[in-house]
Amino acid sequence: MIIVMKPNVGKSEIDHVIEKVEEVGCKAILLEGTNRKVIAAIGDKRDVSPEFWSAIPGVEKAVPILAPYKIASREVKKTDTEIKINDQIIGGNKVSVIAGPCAVESQDQINFIADKVKKAGAIALRGGAFKPRTNPYSFQGLREEGLEYLAKAREATGLAVVTEVLSPEHVKLVSSYVDVLQIGTRNMANFLLLQAVGECKKPVILKRGMSATMDEFLLAGEYILSHGNPNVILCERGIRTFENHTRFTLSLSIVPQLKKLTHLPIIVDPSHGTGVRDLVKPMSKGAIAVGADGLLLEVHPDPEKAFVDGPQTITIEEFENLMTESRAIARAVGRDI
Amino acid sequence: MIIVMKPNVGKSEIDHVIEKVEEVGCKAILLEGTNRKVIAAIGDKRDVSPEFWSAIPGVEKAVPILAPYKIASREVKKTDTEIKINDQIIGGNKVSVIAGPCAVESQDQINFIADKVKKAGAIALRGGAFKPRTNPYSFQGLREEGLEYLAKAREATGLAVVTEVLSPEHVKLVSSYVDVLQIGTRNMANFLLLQAVGECKKPVILKRGMSATMDEFLLAGEYILSHGNPNVILCERGIRTFENHTRFTLSLSIVPQLKKLTHLPIIVDPSHGTGVRDLVKPMSKGAIAVGADGLLLEVHPDPEKAFVDGPQTITIEEFENLMTESRAIARAVGRDI
Amino acid sequence: MIIVMKPNVGKSEIDHVIEKVEEVGCKAILLEGTNRKVIAAIGDKRDVSPEFWSAIPGVEKAVPILAPYKIASREVKKTDTEIKINDQIIGGNKVSVIAGPCAVESQDQINFIADKVKKAGAIALRGGAFKPRTNPYSFQGLREEGLEYLAKAREATGLAVVTEVLSPEHVKLVSSYVDVLQIGTRNMANFLLLQAVGECKKPVILKRGMSATMDEFLLAGEYILSHGNPNVILCERGIRTFENHTRFTLSLSIVPQLKKLTHLPIIVDPSHGTGVRDLVKPMSKGAIAVGADGLLLEVHPDPEKAFVDGPQTITIEEFENLMTESRAIARAVGRDI
Amino acid sequence: MIIVMKPNVGKSEIDHVIEKVEEVGCKAILLEGTNRKVIAAIGDKRDVSPEFWSAIPGVEKAVPILAPYKIASREVKKTDTEIKINDQIIGGNKVSVIAGPCAVESQDQINFIADKVKKAGAIALRGGAFKPRTNPYSFQGLREEGLEYLAKAREATGLAVVTEVLSPEHVKLVSSYVDVLQIGTRNMANFLLLQAVGECKKPVILKRGMSATMDEFLLAGEYILSHGNPNVILCERGIRTFENHTRFTLSLSIVPQLKKLTHLPIIVDPSHGTGVRDLVKPMSKGAIAVGADGLLLEVHPDPEKAFVDGPQTITIEEFENLMTESRAIARAVGRDI
Repeated sequence: MIIVMKPNVGKSEIDHVIEKVEEVGCKAILLEGTNRKVIAAIGDKRDVSPEFWSAIPGVEKAVPILAPYKIASREVKKTDTEIKINDQIIGGNKVSVIAGPCAVESQDQINFIADKVKKAGAIALRGGAFKPRTNPYSFQGLREEGLEYLAKAREATGLAVVTEVLSPEHVKLVSSYVDVLQIGTRNMANFLLLQAVGECKKPVILKRGMSATMDEFLLAGEYILSHGNPNVILCERGIRTFENHTRFTLSLSIVPQLKKLTHLPIIVDPSHGTGVRDLVKPMSKGAIAVGADGLLLEVHPDPEKAFVDGPQTITIEEFENLMTESRAIARAVGRDI
Repeated sequence: MIIVMKPNVGKSEIDHVIEKVEEVGCKAILLEGTNRKVIAAIGDKRDVSPEFWSAIPGVEKAVPILAPYKIASREVKKTDTEIKINDQIIGGNKVSVIAGPCAVESQDQINFIADKVKKAGAIALRGGAFKPRTNPYSFQGLREEGLEYLAKAREATGLAVVTEVLSPEHVKLVSSYVDVLQIGTRNMANFLLLQAVGECKKPVILKRGMSATMDEFLLAGEYILSHGNPNVILCERGIRTFENHTRFTLSLSIVPQLKKLTHLPIIVDPSHGTGVRDLVKPMSKGAIAVGADGLLLEVHPDPEKAFVDGPQTITIEEFENLMTESRAIARAVGRDI
Repeated sequence: MIIVMKPNVGKSEIDHVIEKVEEVGCKAILLEGTNRKVIAAIGDKRDVSPEFWSAIPGVEKAVPILAPYKIASREVKKTDTEIKINDQIIGGNKVSVIAGPCAVESQDQINFIADKVKKAGAIALRGGAFKPRTNPYSFQGLREEGLEYLAKAREATGLAVVTEVLSPEHVKLVSSYVDVLQIGTRNMANFLLLQAVGECKKPVILKRGMSATMDEFLLAGEYILSHGNPNVILCERGIRTFENHTRFTLSLSIVPQLKKLTHLPIIVDPSHGTGVRDLVKPMSKGAIAVGADGLLLEVHPDPEKAFVDGPQTITIEEFENLMTESRAIARAVGRDI
Repeated sequence: MIIVMKPNVGKSEIDHVIEKVEEVGCKAILLEGTNRKVIAAIGDKRDVSPEFWSAIPGVEKAVPILAPYKIASREVKKTDTEIKINDQIIGGNKVSVIAGPCAVESQDQINFIADKVKKAGAIALRGGAFKPRTNPYSFQGLREEGLEYLAKAREATGLAVVTEVLSPEHVKLVSSYVDVLQIGTRNMANFLLLQAVGECKKPVILKRGMSATMDEFLLAGEYILSHGNPNVILCERGIRTFENHTRFTLSLSIVPQLKKLTHLPIIVDPSHGTGVRDLVKPMSKGAIAVGADGLLLEVHPDPEKAFVDGPQTITIEEFENLMTESRAIARAVGRDI
């Protein structure tokens, strides 16, 4: 930690900071600059935040040298983490596609879609049973009935199934039905939920909060990891910016940046990340080109009739076409789908 | 709803939209513009979202005429809602100040602060028992022990107590100890939690999500209202922007804008909204000047020793001074503290 | 234009709006909804802005149906615009790469780089002669001397040369030396400069303002087009958001969205768009995958010694490698470099 | 400057950085942390930017200790700068209000408004002669004719006049007519224009760029100061964020933060900062409460007929009422209007 003192602080304030540095178990080195005094705290104490230091009188700011996360860091684990989902791997050489409707609507619907996306090359089926809806008057999902349909669609097709979990008290129920738990963007900083899925061992897809910085995103991953679950898949799904031609701004540059900093696999959700059907295919191709390990896509035979998220949902035919074109990109970066 | 068709759509697409409009119970009026055809759907159907329409083939966009919330709207209830907190009112002519430490640390700490903030004019005591922390290695709160300390501080001072609730399963426990439940910014879109506090009858302080638009904020309030709890206090606490001289950008313009659109009281949290101790007093005064019904403030006798949020916490003396200066502003806008 | 009236407006306010609609030459249709009255103004009057309407008493908001730009619109010109730069085309099937140093430093430097980037496949050379610098104490460019060096580098290599123009009074001078004028992000809304390059006939690379919406970006292009210059190349270069792992957030989704709305070619600048050397190659590949017509890249033999923008500048070797990998992506989307 | 090296860098990379530090005239101190090596560069070299350092191989990031601006800094000049505008002062104890129409429309219009705003307490008249318009088809201002009208309005009322200057080549002309030059938000980073007004001696109102950080804003001020003009008035006018209930987000917290860091006066423009007429009065009061030295307001006798910016323009009566209510706030903070 680099602790920058305010101009004109006295000896007593500096001594006090040095004392505090030693108290937390670090070594203090005082640097006397032309206009400022700076104290370097030497030692790996990631749990002592910059806020701790800037609350001390006389301190102007504190700049961390080390990242606040550790288990998620590539410094700690150099090789890519590969996560097993039934007989498939996420994070290996293959680009893994997970597809399905935003919401599970009926057994027929989910089986039909599961069959189609499997044939087109998807490795897992997604479908929402518990739906977090901005509007209290909107459809909230089939809940446990939806989980049962997902489990039966797995039996029918062999595809692993992925669904969102909304609350710590649902973790046990949901994980008894599905193969992968998804944490939605609105719950990325729901720390009790992160703990709960951390104590479970099922793979978790952790969506980036729509206003989370990269460090906050990795710290959310660290929450899960630090509670004992090593199977964390990060998912970029668009951030909130001033742009209004899309619902969110899909920030693809986070993919190669995360690849440098963490060993965890990273997938991209261009459906929520744009909110616009026509943009799903080009942004899927872009995601693969920048190095994403997979895609999470909303597919429905009749998007107009989808209970949720119709405008960003692609049809079965569009999905098949997307897979063909994406495969060409995957090969151009030395991977396969 | 105004439904704008893409250029060059055919009659069958238009007829299909008109049919859908009538299906949901609205009346359709077709407007033939110079370059575009537009269909107006007449009728109060707030639960049919723009997304429903833009998912239909041939539709370019759908523009809602009515706000998506209803119970929260001033069109439905014209007079200001006043919310009773023990023997005090939030939303009346008085500017209500709620103050206390970010985290409850001990019985002595909370009693000492309660006594001081009461004397300086606060109407309620805040203090965190369950702390949502970005970093998994940070202090997570005293939990039920903290709730007990809060309840005892109430006994000792007569101040109502406010604390954050993090999960639906905690609502019963927390509301058995405290007078006001707080929903934090990271949980504004935790819809199961909104439902749970909606089914409880205790007053709720609902903090704006750091990336929530005004409509999304009001819809979160509507969630609580629509589940039966009319006692919703809105709280602006800063939004995430590109600015880096503060932790968040405190958006004071939302206060007078909300006053036009909703009957619910609105308070402001300048501690989290800036993250900078020196800015708490001026921004408190600004909040009152723009019409806020109250303030939510972090106060600690020794911010350097505060377990959480030290850099934005003011001392008892600073709080007393803030109250004096804020009182002058309150009077200048015809109110009192 | 759809003009939404406030609740409870009287007949006189409605009549007044209808009169205004007819005054500007549109036809007014009054729609009487359940809770609101709405007036549709029929007619292609893009120059009458929503602001004109919302300033009228009783009007709640005005929603435009037509885009505010016209010449730039694909509705007006359906086929892609191809722009000739010397013997090369931007906007055709080929992905056009423009590369060079951020700043021209010497004749040797620019000739050396020109030769290298040409061999690796670039179709034009970029280099700054007038540098807009945030810090007044930073290097401001070689000015006319830099233009001379660029012109000589063109003679030596046959590459077209591109440079930024900062002020209307420089347009004549700069265009006497170079083949393509560049408008920087900080000048996208410098309307006098847009006019000046509009009156010139040289091709213009128009960089997106770092906080410009898509409509504002297209309106800036329309400025140039409407002053007589049809040779506008749009360039996405990153927007300002809360993200801090990159200098800007490169918004690739604007590329396919612009392709739907305009016939103008669109290129991407991943050097400024990320500010991070390691991200230039993956984001270049992403840009091509989403459909960009070209790339604008900063290349320098020794980025550490570059006068400007060292951290985002790639070496000659990195550029050669980028071209090889990008070529594979271009082929995967049916194009060439 | 604190230079953080990448993990696992070798001695040669460290020696190379140390050499560079000494080359620019600083003293290097090597700190060997547990996981990282850090080099502190001691010496006041604000012109060597963090980018210079992060371009060097092996460097992970560079963190500046000193602010990049100097003349603007309160460390260099401790007392508040007061700027004389004719017989009035901006930056003293009085809150200075500058008001007038967005665009000068006629001699009668400007004289009428000048007279009214003077009587209500304004110290200067604003009015646009050259208008930067987003839409090329919108009204662009009366240009020199408008300047003449402004000069005559000054003769008639004795009010100082303020107008925007758009281009370096206009500075001489505009400053021959008016008392204060205004740099608009779209030109805050038009460095040639900043130089030109820096070489002129007339007071300058510098509006914050809509996506400028506080440091960039102060650096723009430093441009003007460093070219010889000490009369810089900073103006917050709203930033671009995801919020959509206002045109921009007026960031009032920058006012007290700037007061800590700079001696320059700071005013606020709530008209552009919100874009909503009803919000102008409350946000004016908020601006004064947080410590602004003045207000810049758009006033027009008939906003509906204003050529520009009608929706955010207040009437004469609204202005008079705003002045009365704002005076109460000014007194509550120990100032006058």
